[in-house]
Amino acid sequence: MEQPIYVLLIDCPDQKGLVHHISGVLYRLGLNIIGNQEFVEHEDNRFFMRTSFQGKIDKKEVIAEIRGFLPEGSSVTLVRQRPKNIVVLVTKEQHCLGELLVRHQFRELNANILAVVGNHPELGHFTHQFGINYHHVPHTGLTREQHEAAVLEVIARYDPEYLVLAKYMRILSPEFVDHFPNRIINIHHSFLPAFIGASPYRQAYERGVKIIGATAHIVNNDLDEGPIIVQNVIPVDHTYSVNDMIRSGKDVEKIALARALQLVFEDKVTVNGNKTIIFD
Amino acid sequence: MEQPIYVLLIDCPDQKGLVHHISGVLYRLGLNIIGNQEFVEHEDNRFFMRTSFQGKIDKKEVIAEIRGFLPEGSSVTLVRQRPKNIVVLVTKEQHCLGELLVRHQFRELNANILAVVGNHPELGHFTHQFGINYHHVPHTGLTREQHEAAVLEVIARYDPEYLVLAKYMRILSPEFVDHFPNRIINIHHSFLPAFIGASPYRQAYERGVKIIGATAHIVNNDLDEGPIIVQNVIPVDHTYSVNDMIRSGKDVEKIALARALQLVFEDKVTVNGNKTIIFD
Amino acid sequence: MEQPIYVLLIDCPDQKGLVHHISGVLYRLGLNIIGNQEFVEHEDNRFFMRTSFQGKIDKKEVIAEIRGFLPEGSSVTLVRQRPKNIVVLVTKEQHCLGELLVRHQFRELNANILAVVGNHPELGHFTHQFGINYHHVPHTGLTREQHEAAVLEVIARYDPEYLVLAKYMRILSPEFVDHFPNRIINIHHSFLPAFIGASPYRQAYERGVKIIGATAHIVNNDLDEGPIIVQNVIPVDHTYSVNDMIRSGKDVEKIALARALQLVFEDKVTVNGNKTIIFD
Amino acid sequence: MEQPIYVLLIDCPDQKGLVHHISGVLYRLGLNIIGNQEFVEHEDNRFFMRTSFQGKIDKKEVIAEIRGFLPEGSSVTLVRQRPKNIVVLVTKEQHCLGELLVRHQFRELNANILAVVGNHPELGHFTHQFGINYHHVPHTGLTREQHEAAVLEVIARYDPEYLVLAKYMRILSPEFVDHFPNRIINIHHSFLPAFIGASPYRQAYERGVKIIGATAHIVNNDLDEGPIIVQNVIPVDHTYSVNDMIRSGKDVEKIALARALQLVFEDKVTVNGNKTIIFD
Repeated sequence: MEQPIYVLLIDCPDQKGLVHHISGVLYRLGLNIIGNQEFVEHEDNRFFMRTSFQGKIDKKEVIAEIRGFLPEGSSVTLVRQRPKNIVVLVTKEQHCLGELLVRHQFRELNANILAVVGNHPELGHFTHQFGINYHHVPHTGLTREQHEAAVLEVIARYDPEYLVLAKYMRILSPEFVDHFPNRIINIHHSFLPAFIGASPYRQAYERGVKIIGATAHIVNNDLDEGPIIVQNVIPVDHTYSVNDMIRSGKDVEKIALARALQLVFEDKVTVNGNKTIIFD
Repeated sequence: MEQPIYVLLIDCPDQKGLVHHISGVLYRLGLNIIGNQEFVEHEDNRFFMRTSFQGKIDKKEVIAEIRGFLPEGSSVTLVRQRPKNIVVLVTKEQHCLGELLVRHQFRELNANILAVVGNHPELGHFTHQFGINYHHVPHTGLTREQHEAAVLEVIARYDPEYLVLAKYMRILSPEFVDHFPNRIINIHHSFLPAFIGASPYRQAYERGVKIIGATAHIVNNDLDEGPIIVQNVIPVDHTYSVNDMIRSGKDVEKIALARALQLVFEDKVTVNGNKTIIFD
Repeated sequence: MEQPIYVLLIDCPDQKGLVHHISGVLYRLGLNIIGNQEFVEHEDNRFFMRTSFQGKIDKKEVIAEIRGFLPEGSSVTLVRQRPKNIVVLVTKEQHCLGELLVRHQFRELNANILAVVGNHPELGHFTHQFGINYHHVPHTGLTREQHEAAVLEVIARYDPEYLVLAKYMRILSPEFVDHFPNRIINIHHSFLPAFIGASPYRQAYERGVKIIGATAHIVNNDLDEGPIIVQNVIPVDHTYSVNDMIRSGKDVEKIALARALQLVFEDKVTVNGNKTIIFD
Repeated sequence: MEQPIYVLLIDCPDQKGLVHHISGVLYRLGLNIIGNQEFVEHEDNRFFMRTSFQGKIDKKEVIAEIRGFLPEGSSVTLVRQRPKNIVVLVTKEQHCLGELLVRHQFRELNANILAVVGNHPELGHFTHQFGINYHHVPHTGLTREQHEAAVLEVIARYDPEYLVLAKYMRILSPEFVDHFPNRIINIHHSFLPAFIGASPYRQAYERGVKIIGATAHIVNNDLDEGPIIVQNVIPVDHTYSVNDMIRSGKDVEKIALARALQLVFEDKVTVNGNKTIIFD
């Protein structure tokens, strides 16, 4: 039987000997190191490390032993590699959802899509084609608070580890986001921080930019200000109407989202303030 | 003796028969068409055309004949292709200036650099190596108005067709810009409209973006809001310090500026409001 | 009722007055020109033009009138814009097929997928989810000739305008290709002409390239030598295993194929020898 | 006084405990680790590591202590960071040379250009503008052997650590290359392995590719087959003549070369067979 693979993520104040001591713990346990990456953010003197290894361990024991070497204010995470459980939120556009459903069906998403929740009914039939539950939670006639409560109620049934906003066109309240700290991934249809807010392609058209893009990011309480995971761009020119930009942008959006999810679901993304450190 | 090459640029309200009538004028004159491009901006129903041709003509006559077919509110430009006369403005950074001086020396700029004007002395020696005049016009102790007057006085001696801001780090007043309508080209060290203003790389670092860029644009009276000619980007990641971004950004900036100048100097750029139409 | 849109494609020896005369025909018919593009290949003195226009016409009459102005050796095509009828050929990999099926379902492909034909059974169920016919035509125990005859027989039932090879991993004989001249579009999983033939990602890995790519092209009788429509690349580095390249390459492949089909199905691609002219 | 910075490069068969033991040596010496990167090439089970640190050391002692932990067949390199001494070889084209000379003058090359050697006289004056020696070593009337002997004689006067071929259009013999193992950097004007050999832009034009590129690589005894350091591409289309490709390609070439040299001169490039591992 194949032995389990673990990912160890460390985030702590930098000091001498960290790599030596941490790698020592793994060495003494006789574990098979698959990959090892470190980074020191010199501006705030902070050390980050990601190690993946294979072997049988007592998780608590390993964490405790590593913690013994680390200074105050350290974070240690040790996760066993397996597909994440996720719920996808959508509105009407299918391109990002389609990307996820196709990858999911062929086991290329590294996640289990437990359900899709939409504030419109349009994508229900499409989702069902893939044998996935679709919940239509309409927002008409509801306050944002009421609608979010209804959405949360549906999500709660599945207890997902991550929410993926696959062109979900509603702004989430801080209260909603607080339920899933650093666990909501969004795709924004612009090259952030350019064109924050609504109708970014219209904005891009009006401004006459020569490149458009998309940004996959972790959602926090500041709209479009969360830590960026992946950005992806394509050239445009004066012949592009707003609709041409929207059409071309779809390809950029879905690929950016898919790459970001790949990184997140392989535990390669660490959040440092409003930025990400990506050990790829 | 080789016959002269002309570029005809037309910008007018769209209507039927424009291409037929305009091409008819050139056909009857027996001119040799090198290239022909049209574009209709459907949002404001405006027709743009660029035709390059070879042959001997009476410029005024050709313009008059074409004007005869065009509606009210039309613009017709007919220029003979030859290197443009330019003055370059700089501050302390050499990478964009160096790019221009090397291309100029090997006749790859399609322009005559008449002089370089700097508000600091640092780049004087470097400019002189290439046999080009350098004018140091210090701004210390002067109001912006006084300094601009001094700069204008130097520029006036050369009567350039274009000014190129090759990392000139002073903001130009609307009055200054009015002297050179659509004839000042700037390189901004960000992917506009992201990170308008000072220290864009510091802003990019703080925001944690995964792509940085540069924007070559025509200067008008709104800071960093002029029509964009070329944008150019490169990927970055969490390991990039601000200085790493600055260093990598230099390559992106100078290539974006050089490409933009190539387009402008070959009369391939038409301004339409705050946007460009580029017939390349 | 909305008037039909036509695309006129001309390919002829260059001579003076072509644009004037051709645009004159359309002007006199009072047609509404949507877009107009010309190109002269100076190396072989050949003129290419694509005009799209809206209006009611007698197709034969328009073609005859235009032909009247053109020299010997001219090609004139006039097609009414509507979705193309296509059959898709696959083997086992789903990513390109999935891209096409999702776009098709949401009317973003500009084509009707009449059927999918596979030499393996794996993608049958997936295709059926989208309500599309899947024909499994196994090649085991058959000569290439026999297998192609069986495939042709299935295709013939649908009478498609184009065949799309969406990772169809069999080499087609010249006889097969002759049935669909310039009407078979293939996606090759390398940046052609690098890594022609089998296992291009393995070849790329062994060579240690820093960029990998995909090439969508028209199939002719020379393997991997047909006219290129779209190429698309992504950076890789030493950390990429062959499988990592295959995984990343899938995104590049499917987007390249989808862009190529968009161009072909909008009649924007003209073949000139083993090259394409793309009026986009 | 600032303490020296060192780079430690290790290349050895993979085994457990390597990171722990190597980092232990540096920890016990109290050195200040600036950056640390490891990579295991699983296909041949080989471990690579680059560590940069600051501090006073006895080089031999550190190497000996680290070697004590390493298996047979290990390579340990420890270099003090300082600008490399280089000689540049050119023919007639100035764009790569200009890039190097400008960076050099402003101390952005991380290298001392000791001299430029050309088989043509054209770039002599240009090189002298930057205060650098130029040696014209003509090849006319000489065998390749004789010419290389003459070039080697000139180079020997400067005892450079690296040779940079900045569009040097002569093929070097294996005997010449043997004098500088893994110490000659070349820029090839194609996206290798596409278009090996002469006139790659002509080949690219004939093939009708939609992307062109350049490849900076280490020279070994197989023409255009050396380990690739950097590749860089730009899109082209059917409107590009061969000369347009050459012109656009120059920008791609010089930036690819400059980036490759930055990596090499900061000791970030390790050669593994005919591939590079780049710790950036």
